[in-house]
Amino acid sequence: MAEKITPRAQNYPQWYLDVVRQAGLADNSEVRGCMVIKPTGYALWEKMQRGLDRLFKDTGHVNAYFPLFIPKSYFAKEEEMAEGFAKECAVVTHYRLKTVEQNGKRNLIVDPEAELEEPLIIRPTSETIIWRTYKDWIQSYRDLPLLINQWCNVVRWEMRTRLFLRTAEFLWQEGHTAHATQKEAEDETLQMVRVYQKFAEEFMAMPVLVGPKTEGQKFPGAVYTFCIEAMMQDGKALQAGTSHFLGQNFAKAFDVQFQSEQNKQEYAWATSWGVSTRLIGGLLMTHSDDNGLVVPPRLAPTHVVICPLGRNETERAPALAAAEKLAAELRALPRDEFFGYEPIAVKIDNDMKNSPGFRFAEYEVRGVPVRVEIGPKDIEKSACVVARRDVPGKEGKQFGIPLTDAAGYVAKLLRDIQQALYDKAKAFREANTVTANTLDEFRGYFPAEKDDEESGTGVLKFVWAHWDGTRETEQHVQKEYKATIRCLPFDGPTEEGTCIFTGKPSAKRVVFARAY
Amino acid sequence: MAEKITPRAQNYPQWYLDVVRQAGLADNSEVRGCMVIKPTGYALWEKMQRGLDRLFKDTGHVNAYFPLFIPKSYFAKEEEMAEGFAKECAVVTHYRLKTVEQNGKRNLIVDPEAELEEPLIIRPTSETIIWRTYKDWIQSYRDLPLLINQWCNVVRWEMRTRLFLRTAEFLWQEGHTAHATQKEAEDETLQMVRVYQKFAEEFMAMPVLVGPKTEGQKFPGAVYTFCIEAMMQDGKALQAGTSHFLGQNFAKAFDVQFQSEQNKQEYAWATSWGVSTRLIGGLLMTHSDDNGLVVPPRLAPTHVVICPLGRNETERAPALAAAEKLAAELRALPRDEFFGYEPIAVKIDNDMKNSPGFRFAEYEVRGVPVRVEIGPKDIEKSACVVARRDVPGKEGKQFGIPLTDAAGYVAKLLRDIQQALYDKAKAFREANTVTANTLDEFRGYFPAEKDDEESGTGVLKFVWAHWDGTRETEQHVQKEYKATIRCLPFDGPTEEGTCIFTGKPSAKRVVFARAY
Repeated sequence: MAEKITPRAQNYPQWYLDVVRQAGLADNSEVRGCMVIKPTGYALWEKMQRGLDRLFKDTGHVNAYFPLFIPKSYFAKEEEMAEGFAKECAVVTHYRLKTVEQNGKRNLIVDPEAELEEPLIIRPTSETIIWRTYKDWIQSYRDLPLLINQWCNVVRWEMRTRLFLRTAEFLWQEGHTAHATQKEAEDETLQMVRVYQKFAEEFMAMPVLVGPKTEGQKFPGAVYTFCIEAMMQDGKALQAGTSHFLGQNFAKAFDVQFQSEQNKQEYAWATSWGVSTRLIGGLLMTHSDDNGLVVPPRLAPTHVVICPLGRNETERAPALAAAEKLAAELRALPRDEFFGYEPIAVKIDNDMKNSPGFRFAEYEVRGVPVRVEIGPKDIEKSACVVARRDVPGKEGKQFGIPLTDAAGYVAKLLRDIQQALYDKAKAFREANTVTANTLDEFRGYFPAEKDDEESGTGVLKFVWAHWDGTRETEQHVQKEYKATIRCLPFDGPTEEGTCIFTGKPSAKRVVFARAY
Repeated sequence: MAEKITPRAQNYPQWYLDVVRQAGLADNSEVRGCMVIKPTGYALWEKMQRGLDRLFKDTGHVNAYFPLFIPKSYFAKEEEMAEGFAKECAVVTHYRLKTVEQNGKRNLIVDPEAELEEPLIIRPTSETIIWRTYKDWIQSYRDLPLLINQWCNVVRWEMRTRLFLRTAEFLWQEGHTAHATQKEAEDETLQMVRVYQKFAEEFMAMPVLVGPKTEGQKFPGAVYTFCIEAMMQDGKALQAGTSHFLGQNFAKAFDVQFQSEQNKQEYAWATSWGVSTRLIGGLLMTHSDDNGLVVPPRLAPTHVVICPLGRNETERAPALAAAEKLAAELRALPRDEFFGYEPIAVKIDNDMKNSPGFRFAEYEVRGVPVRVEIGPKDIEKSACVVARRDVPGKEGKQFGIPLTDAAGYVAKLLRDIQQALYDKAKAFREANTVTANTLDEFRGYFPAEKDDEESGTGVLKFVWAHWDGTRETEQHVQKEYKATIRCLPFDGPTEEGTCIFTGKPSAKRVVFARAY
C-alpha cells in the first residue's frame, strides 16, 4: 500500500502495472506468460461472469463444458483457423513422468515410453472440438438452434505478454451456436455483439463503438466479425469483445448436416463470440486514476466501506455502533437487479493500528466506490461523512449526512456513481475523437515519436477517416502509422468521400486508432 | 427419450450410463478419457458451484486463479506428491505447430524447433504452483491466514474412465490455505470437511460418513486426510470430498517462512480441500431410479414443469392461461436461502405434438422435481394435479389442488421433497450397514462373485469391523476382498476389540466397503 503509483501523465504503461499490483489484482507467475489472478482481481471477474451469464441466459443460452484438449487432426480441419493459431499452440505430447536415478540422484523425467500417438493441442479457442461434438448432436432441424456457451481457460502462446491484456493462459467465455438458416445465425451474431455492448456500457460503464471488423482484422475462420471497441485513457483502443458469423465453414469441416423441414440435407450455420479476463484490464484503464483503482458499483465486490474513527476504543465505541447499524440497514435493503439480486456489500474497517489517512488511501487504491466516515464529532450530530471514490478529495465528500438517511443516501449514490462513470468515460472518448480529411492531419494524430509503446504522455485519438476499403491500404497504414482500423461503426455517418491515403472512392468513414 | 433405461436390479453400471445419457448429462468425447458435460449436466454443476461457493465465502474464503501449467521442477519438489501423480501427468513439451509439405500435401506438424526448455505439467492438483506463489505473498504473520479457493479444470491421465466418476479432465474446486499455527490449520481442515458434509447433506440430500482416511488411503503429501463417504444404491462407497492437513510439507518444499509475532522465522502450515464434478455421479447414484434422474430441489435447474393439457388449442387455452398465472405466482414468491435467493425456476411445456405420457416421461427422465398438470377437467374445478418426481406413479400424484393455493402448495412440496430424499437415502444406508465380528461374516458381505465391477445385482454393504490399524492388513483385505477402509468415522462407536483378520487388538471399528 505504501508504494507510490506512477502518474498516468508520466508513464501510462507503468501506471497500469502499478495499479494492477497495488490494487492486488494480479501477479506475473514464473510460468512464462501466465498470470496469477489475485483475490481482488478474481472478485471482479466473478462479478463480470455473473452479469454476463445472466445476459446470456436471458437470451436463451445455456452453459456446457468441452474438453481442454484438441487432437491435432481436428485442429487441422478448418484451414484458416489452423493457420491463424498454429504459431501459438501449447502441445501435449506425453502422458506420464517417471523417476530415474541420474548420477546418484533421483530425477523426475518425461517418460519417453509414454508418448501420445496423436499430439493434443491445449484449446486456444474451441470451435473445432465443439463442432466435432455437434456432429453427434445435430441430425434434424428439430435439434436446432443449439445455443451454448462455455466458461473456461484457453492458451495462446504469446511472446509479449501484459497482465490481463495479453497472457498465454486466460479465462474467457466462448459462445458457439448452430442454426438451421443463415439469417438466424446472422441475427445471433448481431444480438451477441449488442449483448456485449450492453454489458460494457451498463455494467462496466465503458462506452464502446460497435460494428464489423475489416477483412484483415476478422477472426480466422469467420465470414465476418463484429466487435466492441473501447477507448482507454491514453487514447488507445481496446478490442473488448467479438462476435463472429462463421457461415458453414465449421459445419463443412466437420460434416455437420441436418435434415431440414423440407427434408433436405443441409449444413448448419454457425456463430461464435467471446470476452475474456482482458475486460479487467479495460475496466481498469477506463476509470482508474492516479490514486488507484476505480470500480463501477455494479461490478464492485465491496460497495461501501464504513470507517468508525476515534483516538481510542472508548471514543470509537459509539461510532462503531453507528457503523454496525448502518451496515445492517444497507445489507437489508431489498435485493434488486442493479446489484444482481445480492445484498449491498459492506465492510466495516475498525482498524485501530493505522491512521485514518492510511486506511482511506487503502480503500481508494482498491477502488471501493463509497466510503463512510463516522467520528466522534459526527456522532454528536447523529451524522456521517460520505466520500465517493470517483471524485477524489474534498469535492467528492458530503458532510453531515444524517445517520437516519444514510442508507438511502448511499444506495442512491452508488447508482449515481455508475452513471457518472459512464458519462465521464463517454465525454473523454468524445473529446478525443477527431476527423481527418487529409493525410497531413492523419499523420499529426499518429506521430512517430509516439510509436513507442512505453511512452505515456499525451492522449492519442480515435480518428474518423475515409478509406478505400482495400486490405493493401489498411496494411500500409498499419506499417506506416502503427494505427489500425478498429471497426466500421454501425452508428457512424454514411457520407461518401475519398480515401485520404490513395484518393480512391470511399463509401464511409472508418475509425483508426492505435490499439492494445 | 424413447430408449429404455436398463433397470438397476438388472445391470447397475449400465443403468448409470443410461441415466447419464438419457437425462442429457454428459457424453464421452473422442479425446481419450475426456467427457463433454452437456447443458443439463452443467446446470447441475453450476447449482453445486453456487451452493459451495456461498459456504466457502461464509467461512471467510475468497477465490483466485493460478496457472494451468506447472513447471516440472516445481512438481518434483514435494516428493510424495510427485510420486503420487507422476504416472498420470499430461505434459506440454512444445509451443508451436507448423505447416509442412509432405508428399505434395500440406500437413500440420509439431514444430521440432519449438521445444520448451522445461516441460510443463498440466495441473493434476495445484499445491506446488500455489505454494510457490505463496512464497511471494507471505512474509509476516500479518499476511496470514491466506484462505483461498480456486475453481478450475485439472487433468489426471486415468486409464479406466467412467463419466463423472473418473475422467482424465475434470472440473473441481481446490482450497489452499496457509496458517501461522498448526492448530489453526488443523481447525481449518476439520471445518472444511464439515462444510462438505453440510453441502452433501443439505443441498445434495446425500448422507455421508465423516472422518479420517487411513495412512494408506490419504492424499500424497498430506499428514492426514479427512473425507466424506456416501453410499450409492448398489451399496458401494463414493469418496465425495476430501480435506487435507498438509503440515509444513509444502512450506518446506517451497521455503515459505514468515516472521511470527514473536519475531521468529517459521514455516507456514497448510491445508487443501476439494470436491469435483464427481459429485454429479454421486448425486445421480444416490437418488435416481429406473425412470431416470431424480434431483433434490435445492440443486434442480428447473424446479417445476407445468403441462397444460387438452386435445386442441381451444380446449387447451384456459389451461395455458392458468399455467401462466401459476408460473408467474411461483416466480414472484419471495427469494430465500433455500432456493439460493433465485426465483423458483418454472417451465411451461405447451408441446402440442406429443402425448401427455410422452411429455411426462421426458421430465421424469430429466429429474424435474415437481410436475403440474392442468387439463380441461381440472379447469372446470379450478384445480390442478401435482406430481412429485421422487414418488413415481399414482402414489406421488395429488389431485384437485385448488389453483388459488397451488403456488404455496408447490413451494412447500419442494421443501418436503428435499427432506424426503435425504431421509430415504439415509434409511437406505442404514438398512445396508452391518457389523462383522468374524472373518466368515466379513467374507459373506464381500463375495468373490461380486468382484466383477460389471455385475449389478444385489446391494453391497458398509461393514463395521475391527482392524488392527496396520497398512499390511488393509492391503491384504483390499487384495483378498476388493474392499477398502473408507474412513474412521468421527461419530462411530469407540468400543475396543480384536482385529477380525489378525486377532490383534483394535482401538475402534472402521468402515469397509467396495468403492468407486
